[in-house]
Amino acid sequence: MLEEEILDFSRRLECLPQFCVLTAPERDLLMQNSTKSLVDKGQILFQQGDFCSGLHILLSGQMKLAFASPQGQEKVLRIIRPGESFCAAMLFTKQPYAFFAQAVRNSLLLHLNKQSMHEIMASNPLFMQNIMQGMADDYQQLVIDFESVRLHSAAERIVRYLLREMEASHASSGVINLDIAKGLIASQLNLTQEHFSRILNELHRFGLIILDGRRIEIPKVDALQAYIPATA
Amino acid sequence: MLEEEILDFSRRLECLPQFCVLTAPERDLLMQNSTKSLVDKGQILFQQGDFCSGLHILLSGQMKLAFASPQGQEKVLRIIRPGESFCAAMLFTKQPYAFFAQAVRNSLLLHLNKQSMHEIMASNPLFMQNIMQGMADDYQQLVIDFESVRLHSAAERIVRYLLREMEASHASSGVINLDIAKGLIASQLNLTQEHFSRILNELHRFGLIILDGRRIEIPKVDALQAYIPATA
Repeated sequence: MLEEEILDFSRRLECLPQFCVLTAPERDLLMQNSTKSLVDKGQILFQQGDFCSGLHILLSGQMKLAFASPQGQEKVLRIIRPGESFCAAMLFTKQPYAFFAQAVRNSLLLHLNKQSMHEIMASNPLFMQNIMQGMADDYQQLVIDFESVRLHSAAERIVRYLLREMEASHASSGVINLDIAKGLIASQLNLTQEHFSRILNELHRFGLIILDGRRIEIPKVDALQAYIPATA
Repeated sequence: MLEEEILDFSRRLECLPQFCVLTAPERDLLMQNSTKSLVDKGQILFQQGDFCSGLHILLSGQMKLAFASPQGQEKVLRIIRPGESFCAAMLFTKQPYAFFAQAVRNSLLLHLNKQSMHEIMASNPLFMQNIMQGMADDYQQLVIDFESVRLHSAAERIVRYLLREMEASHASSGVINLDIAKGLIASQLNLTQEHFSRILNELHRFGLIILDGRRIEIPKVDALQAYIPATA
């Protein structure tokens, strides 16, 4: 990268919660060994079976992590939004990626070199802690998704998804604007798009949500929450 | 724990790959702040929703990590064998356990205090690296299990399980002795026990495995491997 770009990306890094504990020289060092990449919509960033060479951060656009079956069936594991890093766990294992990454929209990414990451983690315990916490949260989320796919009904999975989106967007007003294509959300919940749409329409008919294109209003959070059976 | 017990457990710790990089004083310090627990078959070690206070190591017996649905349905996430530690990720997240742990057999466990773990990780980078690698491998295994449940047929899941077990037990002879109850293996593969048994019997009839109670022989590994469709 050019000097100017390094400075620009170093500033962007400073704004991300996991990286704000880095000193300016640490950020610069990290950036000098990093690369940016522009990945067009539909383009693959890495394939299942590739080996990880560093941490990816999405600066703008949207990416999906997914599996493909030999029959060509695809299942979404996770959708990445700007500001999120992904595959931190891959910095610490010798195994290859078990999924692929593809751009859902034109995306700008930073690729932080694995060795520089390890060097800075070794000298900055707070940074190490942030990376580990991110990795632990990824693990926890995966456990919850796994549980959900195996135990919960389709409607319950959708209700849980809507409540989580509402919480993540701090939408106290109870309004969610879906920024992810419905097909991708459906796949993430292990549903077909038709099944997903049918249940959204049902929830709308029951008055539990108000559907308006990509805008979903939850008039009474309690009523929607009551749709989830109490845990044993 | 008594002085003698500390010495005994410290020696056991020394034999475990993740802990062999600790110095004797580090091991002793860790042990002084740790507790052992005897958990009878059927007893719960921790519940879904509990908060983690340290790392668990199974010294003898067998444990299961599982989810329960409000309807009382249970799904096994992982079976823990002696020498394995579990829930390393929980040392780094502020979230509660999303699953419970229950003894499948009478079990002896060590519980390594969270704060001591963090202190020793901070001063011993090799130990930190081992814990992180364990955590990353757990994450990777969970991704693979998740993929398997969503994409692979029941028969393919069973074949993959058998091949993995064969590899893990270094059984070049192609003989596996199932040390886990069939119902638990079935649940881990998201199958009913009946479905699991039916497919094992089918594989036996096709000559791909030779079933003999808890002993499974794989006469030709290639032939069994060919049962898995090639990846795209």
